[in-house]
This record gives sequence, structure tokens and C-alpha cells, in this order.
Amino acid sequence: MLVTAGCLLLPAVVALLYRESDWVWFAAAAGIGGVIGGGTLMVLRDAPDLRVREGFAVVAFGWLCVGLLGALPFWFSGQIPSFTDAAFESISGFTTTGATILTDIEGRSHGVLFWRALSHWLGGMGIVLLAVAILPLLGVGGMQLYRAEVPGPVAERLTPRIRETAKLLWAVYFLLTVLEIAALMIAGMGPFDAVCHSFATMATGGFSNHGSSVGGYATPAVEWIIILFMFLAGANFSLHFLALSGRWRVYTRDEEFRFYLSIVLVCTAIIGGVLFSIHFYPTWQETLRHSLFQVTAILTTTGFGTADYLQWPPIAHALLLVLMTIGGCAGSTGGGVKVMRVFILLRHAKLELKKMLHPRGVFTLWFNNRALSPALQTNVLGFFLLYMVVYITGVLILTLGGRDIVTSVGATAATLGNIGPGLGLVGPASTYADLMGWEKWLLVLFMLIGRLEIFTVLVLFLPGAWRRS
Amino acid sequence: MLVTAGCLLLPAVVALLYRESDWVWFAAAAGIGGVIGGGTLMVLRDAPDLRVREGFAVVAFGWLCVGLLGALPFWFSGQIPSFTDAAFESISGFTTTGATILTDIEGRSHGVLFWRALSHWLGGMGIVLLAVAILPLLGVGGMQLYRAEVPGPVAERLTPRIRETAKLLWAVYFLLTVLEIAALMIAGMGPFDAVCHSFATMATGGFSNHGSSVGGYATPAVEWIIILFMFLAGANFSLHFLALSGRWRVYTRDEEFRFYLSIVLVCTAIIGGVLFSIHFYPTWQETLRHSLFQVTAILTTTGFGTADYLQWPPIAHALLLVLMTIGGCAGSTGGGVKVMRVFILLRHAKLELKKMLHPRGVFTLWFNNRALSPALQTNVLGFFLLYMVVYITGVLILTLGGRDIVTSVGATAATLGNIGPGLGLVGPASTYADLMGWEKWLLVLFMLIGRLEIFTVLVLFLPGAWRRS
Repeated sequence: MLVTAGCLLLPAVVALLYRESDWVWFAAAAGIGGVIGGGTLMVLRDAPDLRVREGFAVVAFGWLCVGLLGALPFWFSGQIPSFTDAAFESISGFTTTGATILTDIEGRSHGVLFWRALSHWLGGMGIVLLAVAILPLLGVGGMQLYRAEVPGPVAERLTPRIRETAKLLWAVYFLLTVLEIAALMIAGMGPFDAVCHSFATMATGGFSNHGSSVGGYATPAVEWIIILFMFLAGANFSLHFLALSGRWRVYTRDEEFRFYLSIVLVCTAIIGGVLFSIHFYPTWQETLRHSLFQVTAILTTTGFGTADYLQWPPIAHALLLVLMTIGGCAGSTGGGVKVMRVFILLRHAKLELKKMLHPRGVFTLWFNNRALSPALQTNVLGFFLLYMVVYITGVLILTLGGRDIVTSVGATAATLGNIGPGLGLVGPASTYADLMGWEKWLLVLFMLIGRLEIFTVLVLFLPGAWRRS
Repeated sequence: MLVTAGCLLLPAVVALLYRESDWVWFAAAAGIGGVIGGGTLMVLRDAPDLRVREGFAVVAFGWLCVGLLGALPFWFSGQIPSFTDAAFESISGFTTTGATILTDIEGRSHGVLFWRALSHWLGGMGIVLLAVAILPLLGVGGMQLYRAEVPGPVAERLTPRIRETAKLLWAVYFLLTVLEIAALMIAGMGPFDAVCHSFATMATGGFSNHGSSVGGYATPAVEWIIILFMFLAGANFSLHFLALSGRWRVYTRDEEFRFYLSIVLVCTAIIGGVLFSIHFYPTWQETLRHSLFQVTAILTTTGFGTADYLQWPPIAHALLLVLMTIGGCAGSTGGGVKVMRVFILLRHAKLELKKMLHPRGVFTLWFNNRALSPALQTNVLGFFLLYMVVYITGVLILTLGGRDIVTSVGATAATLGNIGPGLGLVGPASTYADLMGWEKWLLVLFMLIGRLEIFTVLVLFLPGAWRRS
């Protein structure tokens, strides 16, 4: 809360620089955040150490509270008159979802646009910390699988080593963001847009300063740069760190990264091939760029757009829907089930099939040359099942409210996977503005559930979580 | 093959009774089946015992060959001029799917209608045998879970005990069929229709003698009778056997049955409630009957219809799509993932969530008061994952061919789950006639994959299955 309050001063500065009057509302929100955060700190200074179950509550409610604090300047300034909409936009920012309710983005002030982008970037930093330090402590999350390999977490209390790791990964995150800003400016983008879009890219967020997203005004060079950085943001940051330390081979050695790259290439080939065969775009270059952009934007759960994929043939919808559920790599800022988990699930399914042929055989599930313990396997399977349960529940609730099935599936997939644009009424060429209030709050819940790796939020729904021990 | 050849004489007799000329084609097909079956028997008389992997091939290709034999009279007689269509109809029959390509069912001869219904009924007998005796030998299938409880299978060679069990369950199947025929006739249905619809009900097939299925001409009494018997056909036949032996309490003690009943009641309440609230039907009785009928028909994977659920609000589509994937109980003639597996998956997911709160706790997955071994748990999870893989692959292939996403999802769900009617172009008020040839063969493959519990067919795609050992 205190960090967010401090960061709220940045859009205030931006507003002042652009001589916009709404700087005062950012400052006011910063003050409120400071008071609440500082007060909480004072009250809890002598509190005993957190136990695991309290950790879940802190992470889940912390993310929610930061998101609500971030909604205040949108609401105070009247730039987003409805509090529901302001909260939707802010939590969509902090969960790096990028689903928007703004229908006239171009009319928003620079302060608001900057705060949207910054909320992504802060959310992304939070996710790195979460993946590296917090979730492993709570026993959640895929990064445990990297325990022995990379400068990653171990299941112990927050040690200097974990702090160190988080700082290193933040440095990578920061460096890539700076590189993207520079690249975009060299490609001709203005500095304000370059900063905002780089924040949104590296966090795999997807808020753009333009109603038609990146497609509205970007040159091919800009699109290629964003494709590259989306792809990097959707990969494991530990790999980038190792690569930057000179160990470039980590990319080709990592099974998750190889699978991630294959998915991008194969899906681009399929969608590009179909678009090319029906002459959807005048040139093959354009076909390739649009296919690759949309595939990367959806798989990494960024959600930027350069084309309205709902105009593409049905195979694109089906494939992008699958990609929405797969999501980015473990240890990235991407959402979804995560590439590594999907890889493990497929390998598990294949092993079960092989067992049929060799009923007395003993099979081991290997991942990056390590045998996966049965406990981790069932954890991955449990994650997937819970993801499906939330997904199906979401679709059922939305259709019960009267939404058509395609919009319901698209909206649930796009928020639970922290992507942004979905299908149907919430496709890339439209916004979430027209949904009803309760639907927006439901989708906010899905953003939080998805962002916090399912378990963290769902565990709070268990009666046992609230029992005194 | 020999049994099917013998059974082909029955529709020949029916055709003769109704003085229809196509009896000759049934007789011809019977002859062909007799020659092929007899020849195979002679050749293989001195063959060594089957090994497990050969067992998979025999089951999968056996079902396919019987289906193709059953297509011959449709094709020979010109009643279904295209061989693809004839094979689709026949394999849809033997897999108890009930998806039809016939657009003018009322114009078909009695022989053809009888053979369609009989193919269901024979398919249902085959499934009982498969579930009780063959799949457990191959290490597939949910009935293993009942090993200790019911007069079920043990993982050993075909013993007199398993033969005995199969006979007992066939007796239950036969008895329920006779009871349904009697009940339908008492309710005013003609004997021919009563026989055909009872065959289709008990096999959870769904072929009707009328283009608008049961809804076309049925009285409320007939619909209630069919609801009851669909429900019984979708439950574990072992429970019926035990109940008939006087142990009525088995129903309330069986966790799968209780869950199965709850699903029917809850889904009927939701759909009925929504339909009632929008005054879709004039009376609450009609609302209840149509909701319950469609829920039972889809969950049990029968696929009969009394209403075009595509006209219902979106929640009905979403819910029925979920029910299509759940399917009937283990040890029933129903398809899908099976209620028991879904129950175990949900319990597994919940346990994984509980583990978060109690990281050092030891958790056991209980089902019907038995601790489920980890091997069986991973088998159930593997089954579900493979089901999802085939499902998603199916949707991707159909959309790649240009079908819209709703039809693709509906057609895959309806054939893989052996239901019949799907969504979109293959909804309950339409047929599979307009699909392209390759699509029909693809769906035939899904019917076989679904019917033979996924593993049995998919294992044949493993390279290791064809290697000499």
C-alpha cells in the first residue's frame, strides 16, 4: 500500500508536466494510501510472524486493496465516473490483465493514461516477487520446479538469498523495459507512448493509449519490437537473467522455453497459413506480422492487438481460445495455466497412455532432466482442475445472467488468464464497458484468482481457512 | 462379427413381416458377416492367446468392423445412398451415440428403423461386456474402482466369475428393456415404436423413429417413462443388480449415484427455473418435464429430445455442454468422462486446495469408503487430460476446416461423449447430414474413441503399440 501510494505521486508529476488539473486527485489518493498503509504498519508492528494461512489472506486482500486504492484517482477525477468501472480498470491494471472499460481512451488525460500503464508495471513487479519469493513460501506455484536449477526460491522463510533473487529479476525487468522504451523511440514512437506501451508490454498487461490498441497507429517496426518484447515478457525471467550473465544456452536447454517457442511458431503458421490462403491481407508480410502479433499477444496474455481476430476464420478463434488458457511461462509476468504446467500435463497424459501398453512398467515424469515428484505432479493436476472448475463456473454464472455462450467463454478466459480481450461482445475491437455491474465485479474476482495462481484465492473459500487453530 | 451377423436376420424378419422388399439386403449383410466372422474364426482357431496390446487392437477394430458390417444393409438397400452416411449411422448406432444423418426418418422402412434401434441395443450389450470384463483386463476403465464392492471384475483372465457377472448384468439390461417396452405400450405407444425406443433408451443411444425425436408425438406419460428409464440406463448396472437382489440401499450408499442424482436435480432446477421465469412454456408441469427430459437425455448421453434446447436461454447451452462432458455413471451404457471420474477429479482438486492450508498434512482420497490408490488417481487424471486433448484437437480440426466454433464444440462434445445432438448446426432440431464427408469420418473416430474409454483407441496411436516385442 505504501509503495503504491508513493508511486501514485508519479502520475501526479506527469499530470503537472502536461499542465493537467487532475494531479491533485493522484496526490489525494497517494495521501489516502499513505495514511492507510502507514496506519496498518503501526498497528501491526508488534504483530507475531505470519503463518501460512494468513499469508494467503495478505496476498489476496493486499492485491485487492492496492487495486482499489489505484481506482481512486480515476474515480475522484471524474475521468471514470463509476466506481465499479474505476475499480475494474485499476484491478485490470494491477493484475496485468489489460481488460478496459474505456471507450474513448484518446480523450483521457496523460496522468490517467500513465497511471494505467504504471499499474501494469507495478503489478508485473509484484508478480515477479510473488513467483520468486511469496508463492513458494505458501507452497503454491510453478517456480518450485526450478528450485534446483536457477537462482530461484527454496521453501524457507524470506532469506537474503530470496531477496537477492527478487532484486536480480527486478533488474532484468527494469533493463528490458528500458531497452523497449529506447527501441520504440528509435522506431519513431513518442516518449510518452513508448514508456506507457513498454510498461504494458513487460508486465504482459495490454493497456494501450489508443482505442484501437497498437494497431491504431503503429508502424511495422513498432509492431515487430512489441512482438519481441511480449515474447520476452512471457518467458521465464530467470532464463533472461542467466542469459544476461553469459549463459545463453539456457534458452535451448529449457524444455518449457522450447515448448513455448514451438507453440508460438506452430500457431502462427496455422493462423497465418489460413489467412494467407483466403487472401485476408494483401501481402504475406502483413499476414505473418498480424498472425505472429496476435498469437504472441494472446499466448503471453498481454492482449495488445493490431487486428480484430474476430474477423478471422473460426480456427483463429478456437486456437486463440486455447492459447488464452495456456498462458505464459512460469516465472514470467504472463498469466494463464502456464506453459510449464501444460507441458507437464501433456507428458503425464502420454505416460498414462504408455502405462496401458506396459502395465508392469515403472514410469517417471521428467522435466528439464529432473524426475518430478508425485506430490508436484498432483499439485499441477490439481491446479489445472481448479482452473477448469473456476472457468466453467464463470461461464455458467455469466450465461445464467443472460450473456451468450461465446461472450461468456471469452470474458472468463480473458480475465481468468489475465489477457484482456476475449471473444464475442468483449472481443479486441470492443471493451468491457457494456457489461453489467455485477458482471464486472465477477470478472475482477477472476482476474485476482488467475493472477494469484488460483490456489491463493480459492483457499480463502475453504471453511478451514477461517477457523482458529 | 458372427453375433452381429446373426442379429442382422432379425431386421430381415421385421422387413418380411411388414412386407418390405429390403429384407434381402439384411440377409445379404448377414451372409457377408457370417463368412467374414466364420473365416476369421477358422484362421485364428490355433492362434496363441492374446496379449494386452493385441487386446486393444481387437476391441477397437472389432467395434469398427461390426459398425461397418451394420452399415451394409443401409447402403445395399439404397435407404442411405452414401456409404459414408451409412457407416456414420451404423457406427453411431453401435457406439450408442444416436447422431443421425437421416433427414426424413419417417420415410424409412421398418427394417431400417428396427436395425438402427437394434444396433444401439447390441452396442449397449457390448459396452456392458466391455466395462465388466474386457477393459479391466486391459487396465482401463472405471469399473476397477468397484472391484471389492460389487459382483464386478478382477484383473485376471476371463474367468467363469466374470462371465457370470456379464450374464447377470445382461439379465438386468434385458429385464429393464422388457419393462420399458411394457410401460410404453401401456402408455399407448405402438409395439414397434415401443421396442425401438426401449432399445435406444437402455443403450443410452437416442435414435428415434421420428424426425422430431420423442417430442414429435409423445404423450406426457411416455415422456415420463422414458425419463425414468434413461436415468436407470445412465446409472451403474451393478447397483440395479444388487437392488433387484433385495439390497435397495445400495443406491443411497453409492457416492457416484448420489452425485449423479444431484446433478440431474440441480441442473433441472436451474434450467427449469430460468425457463419458468421467462414463461417459456405455458405451465410449470411442462417446464419441469422438458427441463428434466433434456437434462436426463444429455447427461445420460442418450440424446433423445422433446424440445429444441437451442431455443432456450444461453445458460441451458452452457449447462448442457458441461453435462455432455460429464456423461453417465461407470458401469452404465452412458458415455462421456463418467460421473465417478468427475467426482474423483473434484475431490482431488479440493484435497490439493486443503493441502495448501496444511502443508504437512497427509491426505487420502476416499471414494465409497475406500482409499483410492495413487495409481488409480493418476489414471483418472490421465483419462481426463486425454479426453480434453482429443476434445480440443477435434474442435481445432473442425474449425480449421471452416466450421464455426459453436458447431465444432457441439459436434465434438456430442460424438466424443456418445450423446447425439450437439450445438449450432448439429443441434437437436437438425442432423449431421450436411457435414462434409471427412468431417463425418472424423466424428466416427470420436464416437469410437469416446465409446472405448479413450485409452483403448489412443494407445493404438503410440508407436510402441506396433513394435514387435
